[in-house]
Amino acid sequence: MRFWGSIMKHARIAYAGANHHAISENAGLRLDDGRLVTEDSVIFLPPVLPSIILALGLNYIDHAKELNFQPPTDPLAFPKAPTSLVGHRGQTRRPAGVVFMHYECELAIVIGKTARFVPRQRAHEFIAGYTVANDYAIRDYLENYYRPNLRVKSRDEATPLGPWLVDAADVPDPMNLRLTTTVNGGLTQQGCTKDMVFDIPSLVEYFTGFMTLQPGDLILTGTPEGLADVKPGDEVVTEIESVGRLVNTIVEDWT
Amino acid sequence: MRFWGSIMKHARIAYAGANHHAISENAGLRLDDGRLVTEDSVIFLPPVLPSIILALGLNYIDHAKELNFQPPTDPLAFPKAPTSLVGHRGQTRRPAGVVFMHYECELAIVIGKTARFVPRQRAHEFIAGYTVANDYAIRDYLENYYRPNLRVKSRDEATPLGPWLVDAADVPDPMNLRLTTTVNGGLTQQGCTKDMVFDIPSLVEYFTGFMTLQPGDLILTGTPEGLADVKPGDEVVTEIESVGRLVNTIVEDWT
Repeated sequence: MRFWGSIMKHARIAYAGANHHAISENAGLRLDDGRLVTEDSVIFLPPVLPSIILALGLNYIDHAKELNFQPPTDPLAFPKAPTSLVGHRGQTRRPAGVVFMHYECELAIVIGKTARFVPRQRAHEFIAGYTVANDYAIRDYLENYYRPNLRVKSRDEATPLGPWLVDAADVPDPMNLRLTTTVNGGLTQQGCTKDMVFDIPSLVEYFTGFMTLQPGDLILTGTPEGLADVKPGDEVVTEIESVGRLVNTIVEDWT
Repeated sequence: MRFWGSIMKHARIAYAGANHHAISENAGLRLDDGRLVTEDSVIFLPPVLPSIILALGLNYIDHAKELNFQPPTDPLAFPKAPTSLVGHRGQTRRPAGVVFMHYECELAIVIGKTARFVPRQRAHEFIAGYTVANDYAIRDYLENYYRPNLRVKSRDEATPLGPWLVDAADVPDPMNLRLTTTVNGGLTQQGCTKDMVFDIPSLVEYFTGFMTLQPGDLILTGTPEGLADVKPGDEVVTEIESVGRLVNTIVEDWT
């Protein structure tokens, strides 16, 4: 079903003892069983279940400059554990004793069909849609910007995602979207997807040149400049125009 | 069912139009539907379907020396794409034009239960068993030994696995197993799991200290010295005592 004139937003949520797929409507969330419920009454889960998450390093020119790096000449990509995902309004632990933990607002590409050897001109046929990712990093553990290790990027809850998948058809120009991050309401990061070093079609072509991507797989397209340390209690909102507003709270490590 | 006195070897295979689980017996493979078939009549698939594959770099002292590296003081780990798996007797492409592609015989730990914060003393409770991995690498694309990039380690068919999962109970001393690789019948690599820098219980403790591992997930525990370039037509056999003998053939890139 499609609501003419509205954007199609697909969520995965938990409600009253079960997980559901849901569509966002003005009045609330329409569950797959037909019920209409309020957003406040549900737990948002990550909107997709990827078999792999590929993330880009230094894919915005301004961010590479911020770190005193030259923009890369090939995509700098690393895989992330799918277990690191957490949904909208989730909590992310700051490990005890670390000095610097930063958010990264990123446009996430959701693959829609099994993809291998996809030329950039046909990349759009393999993209189901887009969602918002917050690709947290624990800077303390970072030995190498080009290849962040597992403790930097694959911790449990390190990757808030959502609130929903927006159909590709409802994002007419994904290469011209404004990205912002606010921490406790104050703007700390902003950018535009037009400043990506490697654009969306190029990334799909690059990855599918040597590996198979499957429906639900994610490509996190990198983050613009404006990173800052976040601490327990901080509310971090990563937002992308036409895609979504993803809320996350930093909490103390409970272990 | 368990055959007293024999080792329990669990395979996933394709036969006569369907995928099956199978147990290896002396007379052949016993399918999950009770049929007994010959090994020659089936296609071996990877014995498990992991949600993530974690691989270790430089985890054998002799191999680190071979590359003129100091052994690491923390595990050097990177994730690999599950799509890179291919089963016993599978084919792996050598990309056209590359100069150096090498095998790596590795003991693979298969996780048996959801695992988080597992102390090394209890690691064995979370291990279902072991299988053999061949963690091929395309050296041409390697920028950093500590963090091999996706094109080095996550290509389709880059990770032969199998032939089967052997129950942990049937591998009484996984830290004292002989590993060998032969290329076209000639011995090129040998080592013993006792030479690991970080042993199996330590690895389970380390990873589950910051991330959740799920049943079927794999930890590839690293490779000893003796790496050599392999070319189309080569038959590469990676074998681990008490675990299995994994056969792979290198083929020309067909793209």
